[in-house]
Amino acid sequence: MFITFEGIDHCGKSTQVKLLENYFINEKGLDVINIREPGGTGISEKIRTILLDKKISDMKIETEILLFSASRAQLVREVIKPGLEQGKVVISDRFHDSTTAYQGYGRGIPLEYINTINSFAIAGCVPDITFIIDIDLETAEERKKSKNSVPDRMEIAGREFFERVRNGYREIARTHKRFVLIDGKDEIGIIKNRIIEEVKKRF
Amino acid sequence: MFITFEGIDHCGKSTQVKLLENYFINEKGLDVINIREPGGTGISEKIRTILLDKKISDMKIETEILLFSASRAQLVREVIKPGLEQGKVVISDRFHDSTTAYQGYGRGIPLEYINTINSFAIAGCVPDITFIIDIDLETAEERKKSKNSVPDRMEIAGREFFERVRNGYREIARTHKRFVLIDGKDEIGIIKNRIIEEVKKRF
Repeated sequence: MFITFEGIDHCGKSTQVKLLENYFINEKGLDVINIREPGGTGISEKIRTILLDKKISDMKIETEILLFSASRAQLVREVIKPGLEQGKVVISDRFHDSTTAYQGYGRGIPLEYINTINSFAIAGCVPDITFIIDIDLETAEERKKSKNSVPDRMEIAGREFFERVRNGYREIARTHKRFVLIDGKDEIGIIKNRIIEEVKKRF
Repeated sequence: MFITFEGIDHCGKSTQVKLLENYFINEKGLDVINIREPGGTGISEKIRTILLDKKISDMKIETEILLFSASRAQLVREVIKPGLEQGKVVISDRFHDSTTAYQGYGRGIPLEYINTINSFAIAGCVPDITFIIDIDLETAEERKKSKNSVPDRMEIAGREFFERVRNGYREIARTHKRFVLIDGKDEIGIIKNRIIEEVKKRF
């Protein structure tokens, strides 16, 4: 069972990843591999360091896509596929749909390229369910302020960019039945129940 | 004018790059940008460090391709294109044909993927001439021994692999008129003259 979470920053993904992981471990007694992108292998963490380096300001979008995809290619082959073969549940905070939303819809890179590079990187390892947690920009910004979080290189991008990313996610959500669009403004407990219900329905 | 050199290790590429650079500078008074892949920008050098790290033994082929391509995408946009626009001559020791030869022909990754990723990374920045310096494996091995060079991660791959790469290059050489296949067993001076003759003919 391979489940991914998507959405713009501060949508509440990480909280829900944690809650779903607890559910699988405590209520179902399952082994869970919990990952977040980019990262999750020795090589992928090295790539992450380059991607999130605040001193780098001139990284081209194509470079960014290829680095995210390199990190992902390694993660799929070293961690996700072996984990699934051993019957574990794999939950990932972001996966290839992030590239479609951020670099495709957000940055305007043609989706044909994105789709080919994604499919090369993930090699058929498509998630069984992808929860897209949708929030509007105002809510994201409020949550950001209240957390007082420092922006990283990826976050210094402007409002219109995130608007395109958000709309991209909403578009993507319509393309395949593996997507579940969740209203991220609902309460944490309500979202959690919605997610668990969906998981039960599908497995 | 964008010129690339290709061929298996010890074919004599670097020597010829240097000689051609001298020719352009000393006999033609041109500005030359001399690069070698992977590398050539701050980001690309960071990627190079990961690619050539001897402690990493479990890098997947797909990861390798995407990392080489990320390094190349940055190099094209940060160095090669601006250099060409300023009227400089750009000479590169390896470029996207290396990915086709090594990961495509050598490792058996489908050429459709390689071609798409290459075209994404280089964005139309195709070399005007590509010199493929061809030598047989025996000659490469003899030269290697006499140089006493230490193998890096990319070189620890076995004879059959390099045989496939060499044959890949010979195949590639037939596909487009930008390629010039050079017999790498000829004397350095003869090869140099052959290369300069070809450059004169085309510009």
